Amino acid sequence: MKQSESPLLQQTRELRQAIRSNDHTGPTSGLVTGAMQGNVVILPADWANEFLLFCQKNPVSCPLIGVSEIGDYRLPELATDIDIRHDLPEYYVHRNGEMVESRSDIANLWQDDMVVFVLGCSFSFEHALSQAGLAPRNIEENVNVSMYETNIATTPAGRFFGNTVVTMRPYKPKDAIRAIQITTRFPKAHGAPLHFGTPQEIGIHDLSQPDFGEPVTVKDGEIPVFWACGVTPQVAIRNAKPPICITHAPGKMLITDILDTDLAVL
Amino acid sequence: MKQSESPLLQQTRELRQAIRSNDHTGPTSGLVTGAMQGNVVILPADWANEFLLFCQKNPVSCPLIGVSEIGDYRLPELATDIDIRHDLPEYYVHRNGEMVESRSDIANLWQDDMVVFVLGCSFSFEHALSQAGLAPRNIEENVNVSMYETNIATTPAGRFFGNTVVTMRPYKPKDAIRAIQITTRFPKAHGAPLHFGTPQEIGIHDLSQPDFGEPVTVKDGEIPVFWACGVTPQVAIRNAKPPICITHAPGKMLITDILDTDLAVL
Repeated sequence: MKQSESPLLQQTRELRQAIRSNDHTGPTSGLVTGAMQGNVVILPADWANEFLLFCQKNPVSCPLIGVSEIGDYRLPELATDIDIRHDLPEYYVHRNGEMVESRSDIANLWQDDMVVFVLGCSFSFEHALSQAGLAPRNIEENVNVSMYETNIATTPAGRFFGNTVVTMRPYKPKDAIRAIQITTRFPKAHGAPLHFGTPQEIGIHDLSQPDFGEPVTVKDGEIPVFWACGVTPQVAIRNAKPPICITHAPGKMLITDILDTDLAVL
Repeated sequence: MKQSESPLLQQTRELRQAIRSNDHTGPTSGLVTGAMQGNVVILPADWANEFLLFCQKNPVSCPLIGVSEIGDYRLPELATDIDIRHDLPEYYVHRNGEMVESRSDIANLWQDDMVVFVLGCSFSFEHALSQAGLAPRNIEENVNVSMYETNIATTPAGRFFGNTVVTMRPYKPKDAIRAIQITTRFPKAHGAPLHFGTPQEIGIHDLSQPDFGEPVTVKDGEIPVFWACGVTPQVAIRNAKPPICITHAPGKMLITDILDTDLAVL
């Protein structure tokens, strides 16, 4: 972790401040490229151990990069100034497994027994893909990445279970091979794809109807390539039905001061 | 390079002796797994520099692992006992670009101006694939790997030009992703695939009719995955038309004492 005040870390701090003041409420894909973004799950302490185990058993979908102390809304290992009650562009509030509202901050919902989980996000490798001339279509088309619920079961843990959610980026086969190599370097950002080609094989029936995010163009000669997605826990939370759970809205992530390259292997 | 007399190197020496005495004349795939096998091209000195440049410009198809001195039939950097005039199971003799005969040794054809080129071979990663539970179908079906001439042009050098030859191994998409990761570690054995999926896209019209080697079963749910092949130079030699050129017969390789793992990266 680099905590020196580089130009990149000035940008992450400024973006967090813009998000905190609700000046930025949109998706974060493509913003402050090079800094890691995180999926967020906030649960009461009596659900936290089971969720921690769920992440441990499903490290490709749920690569943990940070966990708070009980009742602590700070995440000093991810950035010194984070206050998770304010620092997401949009929050989803789930009660008994149902998403009941979206909010721009959660100060009024914060409880002293809450634990914050931050999971790596595929946005971390989108920068590396772009640098290799393989800009993801969602970046090119300036939309939120397409996300789909699949029939690929996660490994259950306690009350948490459900299918894996994936992101999709279309590539020509030759570029897909390169994209597999590049994303393999980022295990904390879901790593290599889970599947490519026929969407039906993993239970996706219509690419033009993503379950989260927006559809993107798939051109002639391109095949869809599917990576595990940090929205997967939201399906497990729907099934586990904790009395309260707060997550980021899909595509609207926590901006951290960790560099993508700091958690890359090789 | 490990030159100590390990059990593996006893096996490579014994196999070379069996080949030298014509006790083994068949394909070498799957034999002495762990030891690198090489594609061989032998050319007169006045063609050697252009061919060396061709290899340099096409390192994925033509990964050089050894070049002899002019007139020297030994390759001490690959194994101390190699005599290339005897140590291939089968030779192809090409005159003016045409394959005119196959032979079990070339002692009578050897010239004092000949240069020997040895190129890495995808057999080197077949062992790693098998260890990962991804045994190539050609190994499972005990046949020579399927090879196809494609429409993927090589980069020409002097009189050498032509299309790339590929090997094909079928996998399910999930296994293909793992196979891409594994073979990436072996750049001197052609590394990652060039293509997967639709054969027509790279000019292959019928998978059941390989240009070299034998067809293998492609099961439901599997896609063909294509790697560059060390038979590619034989196409360039057909085009360059040197007065004489001697190569290995496809699938019948030079057994070296270099370990596959010695030339693996990561």
